[in-house]
Amino acid sequence: MPVPGPGYSITVRVEAPPSASAAGDLTSAVGRTGGVITAFDIVESHADRIVVDITCNSLSSDHAEDITEVLRALPGVEVRKVSDRTFLVHLGGKIEVNSKVALANRDDLSRAYTPGVARVCTAIAENPEDARRLTIKRNSIAVVTDGSAVLGLGNIGPAASLPVMEGKAALFKKFAGVNAWPVCLDTQDTDEIIRAVELLAPVYGGINLEDIAAPNCFEIEARLRDRLDIPVFHDDQHGTAIVVLGALRNALRVVDKDITDCRVVVCGVGAAGSAIIRLLQHKQPREIIAVDIDGIVHSERGDTDANLRSIAASTNAEGRTGSLGDAVEGADVFIGVSAPNLLGSDDVAAMNSGAVVFALANPDPEIDPLEAQKHATVVATGRSDYPNQINNVLAFPGFFRGLLDAHAHKITDDMMLAASDAIADVVDGSERVNASFIVPSVFDSTVAPAVADAVRRAATEGQVPATESGIAAGGGAPESAGENRGL
Amino acid sequence: MPVPGPGYSITVRVEAPPSASAAGDLTSAVGRTGGVITAFDIVESHADRIVVDITCNSLSSDHAEDITEVLRALPGVEVRKVSDRTFLVHLGGKIEVNSKVALANRDDLSRAYTPGVARVCTAIAENPEDARRLTIKRNSIAVVTDGSAVLGLGNIGPAASLPVMEGKAALFKKFAGVNAWPVCLDTQDTDEIIRAVELLAPVYGGINLEDIAAPNCFEIEARLRDRLDIPVFHDDQHGTAIVVLGALRNALRVVDKDITDCRVVVCGVGAAGSAIIRLLQHKQPREIIAVDIDGIVHSERGDTDANLRSIAASTNAEGRTGSLGDAVEGADVFIGVSAPNLLGSDDVAAMNSGAVVFALANPDPEIDPLEAQKHATVVATGRSDYPNQINNVLAFPGFFRGLLDAHAHKITDDMMLAASDAIADVVDGSERVNASFIVPSVFDSTVAPAVADAVRRAATEGQVPATESGIAAGGGAPESAGENRGL
Repeated sequence: MPVPGPGYSITVRVEAPPSASAAGDLTSAVGRTGGVITAFDIVESHADRIVVDITCNSLSSDHAEDITEVLRALPGVEVRKVSDRTFLVHLGGKIEVNSKVALANRDDLSRAYTPGVARVCTAIAENPEDARRLTIKRNSIAVVTDGSAVLGLGNIGPAASLPVMEGKAALFKKFAGVNAWPVCLDTQDTDEIIRAVELLAPVYGGINLEDIAAPNCFEIEARLRDRLDIPVFHDDQHGTAIVVLGALRNALRVVDKDITDCRVVVCGVGAAGSAIIRLLQHKQPREIIAVDIDGIVHSERGDTDANLRSIAASTNAEGRTGSLGDAVEGADVFIGVSAPNLLGSDDVAAMNSGAVVFALANPDPEIDPLEAQKHATVVATGRSDYPNQINNVLAFPGFFRGLLDAHAHKITDDMMLAASDAIADVVDGSERVNASFIVPSVFDSTVAPAVADAVRRAATEGQVPATESGIAAGGGAPESAGENRGL
Repeated sequence: MPVPGPGYSITVRVEAPPSASAAGDLTSAVGRTGGVITAFDIVESHADRIVVDITCNSLSSDHAEDITEVLRALPGVEVRKVSDRTFLVHLGGKIEVNSKVALANRDDLSRAYTPGVARVCTAIAENPEDARRLTIKRNSIAVVTDGSAVLGLGNIGPAASLPVMEGKAALFKKFAGVNAWPVCLDTQDTDEIIRAVELLAPVYGGINLEDIAAPNCFEIEARLRDRLDIPVFHDDQHGTAIVVLGALRNALRVVDKDITDCRVVVCGVGAAGSAIIRLLQHKQPREIIAVDIDGIVHSERGDTDANLRSIAASTNAEGRTGSLGDAVEGADVFIGVSAPNLLGSDDVAAMNSGAVVFALANPDPEIDPLEAQKHATVVATGRSDYPNQINNVLAFPGFFRGLLDAHAHKITDDMMLAASDAIADVVDGSERVNASFIVPSVFDSTVAPAVADAVRRAATEGQVPATESGIAAGGGAPESAGENRGL
């Protein structure tokens, strides 16, 4: 059941009569419509009227309009202005570019710009690896989309996807100090997308692909990983997989099961589902059954999609067939990354005891968590209003922080598994794991550094002793990496 | 004659004996090599030694090494570390991306990210012009290069050009509050460059082309202006032209001449020279003579380059031929955007009385300004160590500020002429114009706002009453532009 939320918060400025009952009339009117008042501020007071800002959470845009109309209809009340706080926050965009260096006088300009900058350019021209030390390549990634699969909105295109990419960039900076810049490409052609990212790559230390529809996203990521010497990460695939695996590790601890004994159903074989399956296979569960809109995925199904064929070939060894309901019967774990209302409590009841249900479809999960709770031991969703919120923000900021600090060229499954364990450890290590707490809060500031550490270690274990490691004061330029005197 | 400058500033950390004469020995040694000490800091003091940071300006990288060697050679002295302040300033890049919005709690996330952001995306999908209000498109431009003509370094490619683009972005933010992000493209193919910028355009309100070699730059700018609905501006062309025209207006006031009576020589017909000529033609000088490496440009010369043919057809009506020396004889104005040491004081002596000489080749001008001064009344260069520094930073920040605020789709010559006058007015308006002060200082904070105002007015004069004007609180979204309550 939806509740009024801050995502639909409005402030209505009204003029009302100065009577003693005016405030009560206003608040009652809002309450009658189901709005939840969060602030009531008298901004002006006169002999003949008061001016009040009423801030409230509503259920939807339509509901917000209803609230406004109800106020407008009150006798003696005039609605002066309606402000939508979500839109206000977006005015002029949510991110900005700032200088890190002083530019107050000639000396500053001579170092940050001409003539000093020419020597830095020359150093990089002579030793291209120096770019990872002397430019924003050290700490910047591109958030790349074509706008073809944005949130629950689908194919809205690049311009309309920009607010989401800005939000992603804001999260990268807040949680891990990573500079992220939106790249919203005005094409949905796979070859053009790949070529565009290739052309842009010199500026960046990594690429985060975002909201690009399956199955194109698989080819785009694979071909870019092949052509670029910087890491490429489709967060809708791997960010989800990393957090799911971390949450699953803790969930199985709660129900005291070993993954190698578990039958796992993954519902949804798009970007997230496919990546979850592939990462999960490292843990060697007893069985993985993939289910999509056509039922259980199996080799005899005649799928032509390359991704589906690959999933069919590597899961469901017994060749089971049937519906989602058939798949979950007797299963230990259900992971849904698909669509709302696909499971009922009866389905969960048919699972093995100590069932783990991750119903992650957004905004409405495969099953109401309160329903799932009736029969499952551990329940998680993607929602912030229930326990165990599985949210990619637990993974992607720290993951890229680690990649950038390790000057990594590639992403390996080991790095992703390490990140997954780091997330699980934040909860597990402190002996706090229980059925309602299998992942850290997204606001837990220890998560990103822990993930970054784990990724950095996994990345450097795989490398030759790096001349390009960020930690060594190396390189051909006469500069001292450790010598930052706050100039 | 070069002098030690802050562009070559180093800090040498030495250990020295604790004797009373130690400091004197160290400073004398540096002085003997011609270094200029700017700071002498004892950072550690022990019974048996002192540790000193000696900061000094040097002439060049080689000179900096000489200074270090001289110190190293002193008896009892050990060099611990050498830091180059220019390189230090560049560690990890010179710009960063920050969030403008709070992300401290659930409510913040619900507005800046999911679910609130989805409504903003939908609004833009339904009304694409809303992108110019609700995203970074309102205040962001791309600084685009292929690294083919960077400063005095030539074709160093995209990765090595990045420090210059970062510096450009820092200047955009410092002087005009414009977000600028580097786009360094890994190609020098004209078609690929054009297509890449087209694909990137959804995020930006304008494109600044930078350090792209002539003649490709002309085609790239022209074709992009044709295909994009956001303004495209090659600063090496037009930024230079705008500032030159503004400076020239004031210079002619000093020598009390009308441009329509003047014979103007433009030396160098690349990006800058061509744009100067084209913008200057609006002022209808009596004559413009263009000169390049092959001498005076004229129609019978058999040039095949399209730009040169165009210049030849629109200048030098008398069909003069000859060398640069021939061109400047009797000329009123010399504008050099070419190479060092092309003119002598005899050439300037042969110009008309009240000669104006702009010797703008960087880093070494066409003539030493002190030589030019012998016979010219007004002399300007691109250098910061002489009066009348003609520097594009007087133009590009305010120019884009004006374009973005006017939600401009195109750039017209009227906007550039308006910008040019605004720059000149900063000096002229206050009756301060004289032979040593024809352009404002780059640090004059009134310049960018004045240029922005002028461009905005010129842009809106050419528009239908804009529904997309940033000033009106319009658009389909239920949001109040004026209602920013610091939420």
